[in-house]
Amino acid sequence: MNIPRLSCPRVVIIGGGFAGISLAKKLSKHDVQVVLLDKHNYHTFQPLLYQVSTGGLEPDSIAYPIRKILKDFSNCSFRLANVLEINTEKRKLITNIGKIKYDYLVLATGSETNFFGNKTIEENSMVMKTIPQSLNLRSLILENFEEALLTSDLNERLALMNFVIVGAGPTGVELAGALAEIKKGILPKDYPDLDTRMAQINLVQSGDRVLKEMTIQASEKAEGFLEKLGVNVWKNVCVTGYDGKTATTDKEITFETATLVWAAGVKGATIKGVEAKEFLAKGNRIIVNEFSQVKGIDNIFAVGDVACMESEEFPRGYPMMAQPAIQQGQQLGDNLVRLLENEPLKPFEYKDKGSMATIGRNKAVVDLKNIRFQGVFAWFVWMFVHLFFLIGFRNRVVVFVNWVYNYIRFDREARLIIRPYKKRNKQFINHL
Amino acid sequence: MNIPRLSCPRVVIIGGGFAGISLAKKLSKHDVQVVLLDKHNYHTFQPLLYQVSTGGLEPDSIAYPIRKILKDFSNCSFRLANVLEINTEKRKLITNIGKIKYDYLVLATGSETNFFGNKTIEENSMVMKTIPQSLNLRSLILENFEEALLTSDLNERLALMNFVIVGAGPTGVELAGALAEIKKGILPKDYPDLDTRMAQINLVQSGDRVLKEMTIQASEKAEGFLEKLGVNVWKNVCVTGYDGKTATTDKEITFETATLVWAAGVKGATIKGVEAKEFLAKGNRIIVNEFSQVKGIDNIFAVGDVACMESEEFPRGYPMMAQPAIQQGQQLGDNLVRLLENEPLKPFEYKDKGSMATIGRNKAVVDLKNIRFQGVFAWFVWMFVHLFFLIGFRNRVVVFVNWVYNYIRFDREARLIIRPYKKRNKQFINHL
Repeated sequence: MNIPRLSCPRVVIIGGGFAGISLAKKLSKHDVQVVLLDKHNYHTFQPLLYQVSTGGLEPDSIAYPIRKILKDFSNCSFRLANVLEINTEKRKLITNIGKIKYDYLVLATGSETNFFGNKTIEENSMVMKTIPQSLNLRSLILENFEEALLTSDLNERLALMNFVIVGAGPTGVELAGALAEIKKGILPKDYPDLDTRMAQINLVQSGDRVLKEMTIQASEKAEGFLEKLGVNVWKNVCVTGYDGKTATTDKEITFETATLVWAAGVKGATIKGVEAKEFLAKGNRIIVNEFSQVKGIDNIFAVGDVACMESEEFPRGYPMMAQPAIQQGQQLGDNLVRLLENEPLKPFEYKDKGSMATIGRNKAVVDLKNIRFQGVFAWFVWMFVHLFFLIGFRNRVVVFVNWVYNYIRFDREARLIIRPYKKRNKQFINHL
Repeated sequence: MNIPRLSCPRVVIIGGGFAGISLAKKLSKHDVQVVLLDKHNYHTFQPLLYQVSTGGLEPDSIAYPIRKILKDFSNCSFRLANVLEINTEKRKLITNIGKIKYDYLVLATGSETNFFGNKTIEENSMVMKTIPQSLNLRSLILENFEEALLTSDLNERLALMNFVIVGAGPTGVELAGALAEIKKGILPKDYPDLDTRMAQINLVQSGDRVLKEMTIQASEKAEGFLEKLGVNVWKNVCVTGYDGKTATTDKEITFETATLVWAAGVKGATIKGVEAKEFLAKGNRIIVNEFSQVKGIDNIFAVGDVACMESEEFPRGYPMMAQPAIQQGQQLGDNLVRLLENEPLKPFEYKDKGSMATIGRNKAVVDLKNIRFQGVFAWFVWMFVHLFFLIGFRNRVVVFVNWVYNYIRFDREARLIIRPYKKRNKQFINHL
């Protein structure tokens, strides 16, 4: 891979998400060589992807060049690479751009969509885990409305304006809320020839409440907000298939829809070499001890979504969210330094900073350790926290400007089909 | 096409560029039905495309949803459509979404890249006329540097860092300047492992001066600015072929380069039905009279880049720039109203508002009617004028924030490979 070997130990980090970046930062002042690999040249702020999909933000505002993050860390190198396999015996990685040796390896590969083996859903649904995926969803939503204008078949038109979001975690709830606001504020102006009141937003959930990772109080309030916005919330309904036209469920309900967004599950993004059953917990996450060490391999670690670190409070591993990832990355950084200095490692201690979700304008729910609140204040807290965690001063300013504008004008201006997305053949069209 | 016919005459406009939009605005308060067709759902502010290519701006900041522009004009409909053919006898258009009848037709289709029949250049070069094309160029530039890191072949590395821009009009000059600034300010930080001093920016021009549409004073000053920035300016050199590796010229010079940007010519974007030789002037532009009427067809008009309206000052038609397009669109709007009211038409009179180009930080050249100036003040004027003509308040604020940030920090943060562009197979890769 053409990276000269330094005399100090080499730590290779796979993944430039929250965990990988916070780890690299921790190691930047120490006597180790850090090589960060990612298949994108940017860090993605995933919590705001739904705003890219719904035209509220531009993609570049919630992404940040990894090279720029690392530029002041003279011991860190970045390579744009897709890791294909880990050879744990020879301590090397096989990637699309060549091989690389490591002394210590950290898997910070995050998570990917879990379709639970359902092929029809995998083939026909939209997902929202990366920026290109979010842009595809944006394009599809807009293309559907353009198409709805053209058809004289009422059923087809209804299906084109019917959105089914499966999974009522933060992603599903936030997307549903944003679509409901678009339906109310933007569609009637953009499509005067179309009866946009017929547009439907369905949020389908197999469990008995939305935002099930949060408190019941937050769930109930969020559901109330969603209903106020006109979202149809379906509980205890499990979507069982989707052929691109009809979504079937385990109940008698079916949905005729041109857009099914699958936000119902994620799984660890593992890599060949640590994929054997012995390494994995439920949800494809790699089992690690309290020092983030992969079971049975001393020099390989996993942090963030891909790691399953069991604890008393979270017997199935910490939630797959930004906070545990950031904290595990930082902790592992400190521990790697201790390891190199032959000091005893410290076990991971999770500081629960709470969780939050926004449903729409002035509507959010916040669970902190000792206090819960919902509504306008929660919404401001949500915005402040997200601006704070966004990387880059320019990004913060641009996102802030967009939010202020969108708030005052009830608008979302980034509704452009930059790359048309044709769902039929699952390909981007070279539309120059 | 499912657009109900109103009792008033129907004007169909093809193209939502400067000319088409200014025409639609003029007609919005009159008793005509306006149907605007475009193959994108957004208006593109072309003069700033080079900043998207070079990571200075995000694509959504220089584009604007056409539906949003038209939303207050109750007599205007928009359709996302690609016009395939004009049937001038039956007064109807054939498009990819169906047929549409017109009473009056306005071609505002703009221009497209002119390769002058050179197939090798067409197949292997990059162009910058649309937002997707600009994003492709951005991706390719960044991908080249990532690739340059990997190769141990010095010639290959040099070719990956060698940029050849053909054509020294505003697009070529502005792109060359921006690349030179990136080379100086960003590459050394982003690629510490790479000797980025070896990166070359070549601006190749068949004529004997850059910016040949401007005054000699502006040309000379611009060339000085370019040289100060380290751009190699080649004059009287004509690029004759490019196989993806080597660019040949009519002189003894050849360039080994992985990136050739073709900005050496444009031609009118005509449509089947008005493509016969009798309609066309040099550069594929449709010949129109002083009322923008197409020769021999009373109810078809052409405005902007695609129209060749001869005048004393411009015997080969007005320059293919924003100003003539905007003014012709407005003028035609007034004339169509006159036509419907059986009043005599007024011939087009061009108000030359001058021209300008920016080369880099504090470096621009401005030619106004009675005054010419260059340097810092010209640069501020350039920025002010471009912000002023940008559509949308949000866009102006976001672009302004970006420019201030880029100016203070010597930075361009939108250097993200959102859609990898693989030149080899000329396809976007579905890189999820």
